[in-house]
Amino acid sequence: MCSMRWRPTPCCRSRHPRPCAAITSAWQGAPNWRTPRPGAGSMSSHDRSRNTHMPSTDTNVSLQPALRLDGRTAVLGILGDPVAQVKAPAPLTARLQQAGLNAVLVPMHVRADDVAALLPALLTLHNLAGFIVTVPHKQRVADLLGDGLLPGARRANASNVVRRTVQGGWQGELLDGTGFVAGLRAAGFDPRGRAACIAGAGGAASAIAFALADAGARSVRVCDIDTAKAEALARQLQLHGVEAGTWNGREPGEAELLVNATPVGMRVDDPRPVPASALRAGLWVAEVIMAPAVTPLLQLARERGCIAHEGRHMMERQLGLMADFFEPAILAIAPERLEVAA
Amino acid sequence: MCSMRWRPTPCCRSRHPRPCAAITSAWQGAPNWRTPRPGAGSMSSHDRSRNTHMPSTDTNVSLQPALRLDGRTAVLGILGDPVAQVKAPAPLTARLQQAGLNAVLVPMHVRADDVAALLPALLTLHNLAGFIVTVPHKQRVADLLGDGLLPGARRANASNVVRRTVQGGWQGELLDGTGFVAGLRAAGFDPRGRAACIAGAGGAASAIAFALADAGARSVRVCDIDTAKAEALARQLQLHGVEAGTWNGREPGEAELLVNATPVGMRVDDPRPVPASALRAGLWVAEVIMAPAVTPLLQLARERGCIAHEGRHMMERQLGLMADFFEPAILAIAPERLEVAA
Repeated sequence: MCSMRWRPTPCCRSRHPRPCAAITSAWQGAPNWRTPRPGAGSMSSHDRSRNTHMPSTDTNVSLQPALRLDGRTAVLGILGDPVAQVKAPAPLTARLQQAGLNAVLVPMHVRADDVAALLPALLTLHNLAGFIVTVPHKQRVADLLGDGLLPGARRANASNVVRRTVQGGWQGELLDGTGFVAGLRAAGFDPRGRAACIAGAGGAASAIAFALADAGARSVRVCDIDTAKAEALARQLQLHGVEAGTWNGREPGEAELLVNATPVGMRVDDPRPVPASALRAGLWVAEVIMAPAVTPLLQLARERGCIAHEGRHMMERQLGLMADFFEPAILAIAPERLEVAA
Repeated sequence: MCSMRWRPTPCCRSRHPRPCAAITSAWQGAPNWRTPRPGAGSMSSHDRSRNTHMPSTDTNVSLQPALRLDGRTAVLGILGDPVAQVKAPAPLTARLQQAGLNAVLVPMHVRADDVAALLPALLTLHNLAGFIVTVPHKQRVADLLGDGLLPGARRANASNVVRRTVQGGWQGELLDGTGFVAGLRAAGFDPRGRAACIAGAGGAASAIAFALADAGARSVRVCDIDTAKAEALARQLQLHGVEAGTWNGREPGEAELLVNATPVGMRVDDPRPVPASALRAGLWVAEVIMAPAVTPLLQLARERGCIAHEGRHMMERQLGLMADFFEPAILAIAPERLEVAA
């Protein structure tokens, strides 16, 4: 067991106590899907702009040539408050329909106080296959689902996807960490046998830490401006048999991967979540922030010879994981496969 | 007051006691919107195929060039059981978006027993602008809305459209009759000063009878295989000051319009809802049945020199009425107008 002593450092902070806020920011922004940009439609160019300033268009998927929308369409919701910033409806709908599934994802703006009453009511919409959960409802939904949580969601006590079961209940999972690791792998970094350090100890950090451990990471160290929070996450990881501890947030040490799992970097006047001293040439520096695509941290990382891994990778990979997660629930409602244009 | 004595006749029947079943059948069928048929996209060719066998494509509107679907999209539902047969989602969504409204209509499959609990729960989805109500929920929803009913829905005790108010409640209206009259007018028949007879005395017949009276029809006579039902509707019309009575279902008398407001004609082996003797040359004979487009009644009407008015006219006109009805509720949620391609 590695249990490093956590020391407070001004360079490692989480100003926004909402868990998973950084991850959910991945869905931020509301481009006009009516005007597809060049390159739209491809879901596979995940590593095209690594270490470049080329803007990603991966999630700007147009719903052209046409959307299937009829009485047999299975519906998915995305629950959030607010919900205007979410990006998932068009690209996930396009992805599902391109896979031959008659389904559509629509936003559902619900207040935290109403979530408990809403979940059983949504069960009575028999063609609602499930829903994505975003800020601030991930923990609340996990609390409400109880035995309906799959292992990843239970471990993190947070759920970002919920589907209808054949028994007529809800089943929740957390795909944030899995999506992050899938994004890393697709970009060329396999966590197996490697040490990682994480800035942040909230919901996003927890999901990523466990997913890195699941992927065979040698060790995971975490830091947070809230000492107790970092120590608690380290202990929780250790309880699950993970080689884990706290991190000083200043030097990468033996780590080959540094993850910013805080929301610091989303706002124009944000400081960097870690100082320049934490950025060693050759280190993979990963964000979960989607906007801006290249945060000040990633910019500095590039200048110092690190490999900058943008937040969009996690979102792009989650689209596929979400499609896989919802597919059985969609097919139970809309079993007829759509004709898909070649 | 005209209060003709109702006499039972085998040619005038309502085998399906569900109110408004014939009207709701207007949304039946589930064409594949991914493959637009020639002529799709036009909402204005309402009278193109009058008295011809040309199939209508008016409601087969493709969602090309693209659908706007993002976190700011206002959602509309269509509540029914079953709901697979509804046709409205694609054409109403297309119509709303062509009008610059960021909205999408999705099916919501809900059982009758769950409607009462669902209505308040749907209010907690703050970006749900409203919903269409179809079989078998029109009366149940009207009962639940109580003071939230607009005059047309209150009079018929049935609601097929419900929108969110600025006060945060639901407000219901019934557009079936208004849509029917709008379809008649667009096809060239103005009910003002003219006598009409209606086969059927259920929800569809009631809505149409009141709408014809509102439009200035001189008299409205109704017949039904259920004597008491026809007499009750005639009395209700009279109470509202309408020149109304029962009809023998065999001769048109002075009527210039004959409406089949029963579901008889939807099934292949259905008899005609009225006998040939009811069809005088020059009489307008109107259906509310959508499939088949040309019922055996309309076929016979043409052969006898009547003007056959297909059921699709009512649905097509309702799309516009529904768009108008939902527009303020949509704009309260999604005030930003979409750019609409010229």
